[in-house]
Amino acid sequence: MDKPFKVISGSVTAPAGFLAAGVFCDIKRLGTGKGSNKGKKRDLGVILSEIPAAAAGMFTTNQVCAAPVKVCIEHLRKGVAQAIVVNSGNANACTGPQGLKDARAMAWLLAEELHMPAHHVLVGSTGRIGVTLPMKHVHYGILAALTALGCEAEHADQFAEAIMTSDSRRKAIAVELLVGGKKVRIGGVCKGAGMIQPGMSSTGQRPAAAPLHATMLSFITTDAAIESKLLQRCLGEAVANSFNRITVDGDMSTNDTVVLLANGAAENPKLGSKNRRDLVRFQSALNFVTLELAKMIVRDGEGASRFVTIHLAGARSFFEADAAARAVGNSALVKTSWCGGDPNWGRIIDALGYSKAKIVEEKVDIAYSRPGDKSLLYSLKRGRPTATAFSDLCKIVAAPEFDLHINLNLGRSSAVLYCSDLTEEYVDFNKGDVTDPSSLGG
Amino acid sequence: MDKPFKVISGSVTAPAGFLAAGVFCDIKRLGTGKGSNKGKKRDLGVILSEIPAAAAGMFTTNQVCAAPVKVCIEHLRKGVAQAIVVNSGNANACTGPQGLKDARAMAWLLAEELHMPAHHVLVGSTGRIGVTLPMKHVHYGILAALTALGCEAEHADQFAEAIMTSDSRRKAIAVELLVGGKKVRIGGVCKGAGMIQPGMSSTGQRPAAAPLHATMLSFITTDAAIESKLLQRCLGEAVANSFNRITVDGDMSTNDTVVLLANGAAENPKLGSKNRRDLVRFQSALNFVTLELAKMIVRDGEGASRFVTIHLAGARSFFEADAAARAVGNSALVKTSWCGGDPNWGRIIDALGYSKAKIVEEKVDIAYSRPGDKSLLYSLKRGRPTATAFSDLCKIVAAPEFDLHINLNLGRSSAVLYCSDLTEEYVDFNKGDVTDPSSLGG
Repeated sequence: MDKPFKVISGSVTAPAGFLAAGVFCDIKRLGTGKGSNKGKKRDLGVILSEIPAAAAGMFTTNQVCAAPVKVCIEHLRKGVAQAIVVNSGNANACTGPQGLKDARAMAWLLAEELHMPAHHVLVGSTGRIGVTLPMKHVHYGILAALTALGCEAEHADQFAEAIMTSDSRRKAIAVELLVGGKKVRIGGVCKGAGMIQPGMSSTGQRPAAAPLHATMLSFITTDAAIESKLLQRCLGEAVANSFNRITVDGDMSTNDTVVLLANGAAENPKLGSKNRRDLVRFQSALNFVTLELAKMIVRDGEGASRFVTIHLAGARSFFEADAAARAVGNSALVKTSWCGGDPNWGRIIDALGYSKAKIVEEKVDIAYSRPGDKSLLYSLKRGRPTATAFSDLCKIVAAPEFDLHINLNLGRSSAVLYCSDLTEEYVDFNKGDVTDPSSLGG
Repeated sequence: MDKPFKVISGSVTAPAGFLAAGVFCDIKRLGTGKGSNKGKKRDLGVILSEIPAAAAGMFTTNQVCAAPVKVCIEHLRKGVAQAIVVNSGNANACTGPQGLKDARAMAWLLAEELHMPAHHVLVGSTGRIGVTLPMKHVHYGILAALTALGCEAEHADQFAEAIMTSDSRRKAIAVELLVGGKKVRIGGVCKGAGMIQPGMSSTGQRPAAAPLHATMLSFITTDAAIESKLLQRCLGEAVANSFNRITVDGDMSTNDTVVLLANGAAENPKLGSKNRRDLVRFQSALNFVTLELAKMIVRDGEGASRFVTIHLAGARSFFEADAAARAVGNSALVKTSWCGGDPNWGRIIDALGYSKAKIVEEKVDIAYSRPGDKSLLYSLKRGRPTATAFSDLCKIVAAPEFDLHINLNLGRSSAVLYCSDLTEEYVDFNKGDVTDPSSLGG
């Protein structure tokens, strides 16, 4: 079956009725303590819908939760928003009551200029943890962004740049589908490369038995007409199968945020139970957008040289499938073996053995394939090494992307996890420069 | 109060009635596929008590458990053993029924030569996972070891060398105490540098809510007279506070083993409830031996440049204290910051926030000190950064050893965890050499 949507150019300004901007206001330079103009980077972005939009969000379940996350959860109570303001260079996390005041002020400053209620503005921050926001800079940035707003792809690109921290490149995508004869578009951007193992929920509360798992931020726009409650459900499903299925370093951030605005400018018949097939197509397009964005984060993972998709099957429950996949995808020894292009199954089965999943050594199958390839090369079958030539396995693991297939053969539950390897570059990048007390954190 | 024991020279042959040997039998060379004589290393060791001894053991709770671990658990049922045979270069893990047969044969071959029942011999293996033991080499090694047995310190040193894999140095210690007027000695050796986060129990079964946590092997001898059940209890307590409190890379091995033999040659009044004070002193000496050995493993951690002691206090339960300490001690971002000498508290509180421990941001204290120093330098108090100069914190974290003090201020439970940092050398060491299909694993 063909995909019920097509990929188009552009991102958050591709849907009708959305404007964006990304500007410099020197928050990043403050964050690094560097005074020169060299390497000046955009650090404040705004997205604006021409009309109030249905709004949904998913947020970190880290108990240490940044002020902007708290403010977003408050402002999303009624499911309506019209603008988003985001800064990079400062996470506004662990900043106490002042941090909360600043996050609220950030929303209020933009709302005042736009003549809308403050709770129609959502906020996001990423960067250094534990330092209060330089509010003069934020204010300057907001004013600058308002003069820079536009609906071209370049405006969306500038927004995507403004939210980057350790990212080496912009991350953006857009798709188009037909809903009741009307063209509907979904556009998204995201950022993230380290402190990546999101485990988001709509309230920031950790559901029982939830995966414990970046700063990643993602902002998605659509011109679809849809009620906010249904929108939240759609976003929840999309995030569960994308951002919540990735890990770079296993560290869940204090600031993880995904926000989706749907302004209805496409004038499609409202999505809902009455047009179930349209809803399914919308969901599948949204799933595609979030999954592609999530994979961009892993591919741009700090120091990453491999993109590995773990297909974990045959577990007794999803919880166990997830636990087994994460034990493997977060094992320092497994990740360093990938970095060396080593198809080491011993470290994989060791990690499975200490995971919270039930495993029986004599039942475990481990195989490798090229990405998406159905022909698997088994290195372990029913707990015993196969006769597959080591050099053939090496060829697969030498490639920058490959799939790892694990079957526990104990049940019918499965899970997919997208992971990077652990390289010397990751360590070098993160070991910090103590001559410079700024640490990109949340 | 002075310690009720003193450190003496020597290790497993320091107690009366114990002999040891470590020899070459080319298992390691087979493991690496290298045919030359260059770098030939001892790879089989034997410890022998002149008389049958009370015996106790603690083993990995990894569900993928190596054959020698299974055989030890079987042979320890009656709590008596007289000899130990250990090889390095091959873990005899994931080797199926043949592996179990080989581990039993290893015990039987030594037992035959020594004219004792096979179940009086304990076995250990460490090295490559998934390859069956080269039994001809093992047999040759056992015969060679028997001719090399001796009770001098050099014999114990040769044993300690024979069990090394990625270790850069021998790990050994001995102490002496008085029990009822008699000199009692405890001597121990261990190995381990990677795949280190032991979580051992006496049966290899994971207790509910147990820490999920190298190959590490440790062999301890004492000439104390003590019943095996009490000995097992003493060893359980000692391991819980030492080997089960360390992490290098968070990967629990398939082969973790601690074995303790007590042959009674000191002729002390039998330790038990009748001489409670002597028992307490013996326990404290045994705790010291296992803790010193455990710390040697962390200090020799693969690529490690820092030895960090995390003191986690103020948790609601030991389970939560342990979970919080391990989240910090195993965080890739925290460990790389240590490698850079960066007193980064943002990454620490982030890890606390995603741990399974309850934490309240506004209550968390984070401080650093020199090892064992009572004067703490706070970087965070009640969730807010302190005015402590960054350069003062850097001075502490620049040293090869320091203490990290975390107080959650929510309860009265605490936990200590001994950790290493994550360095480029760790990645380089473990990324493997795919021109050589041998991977040190269990």
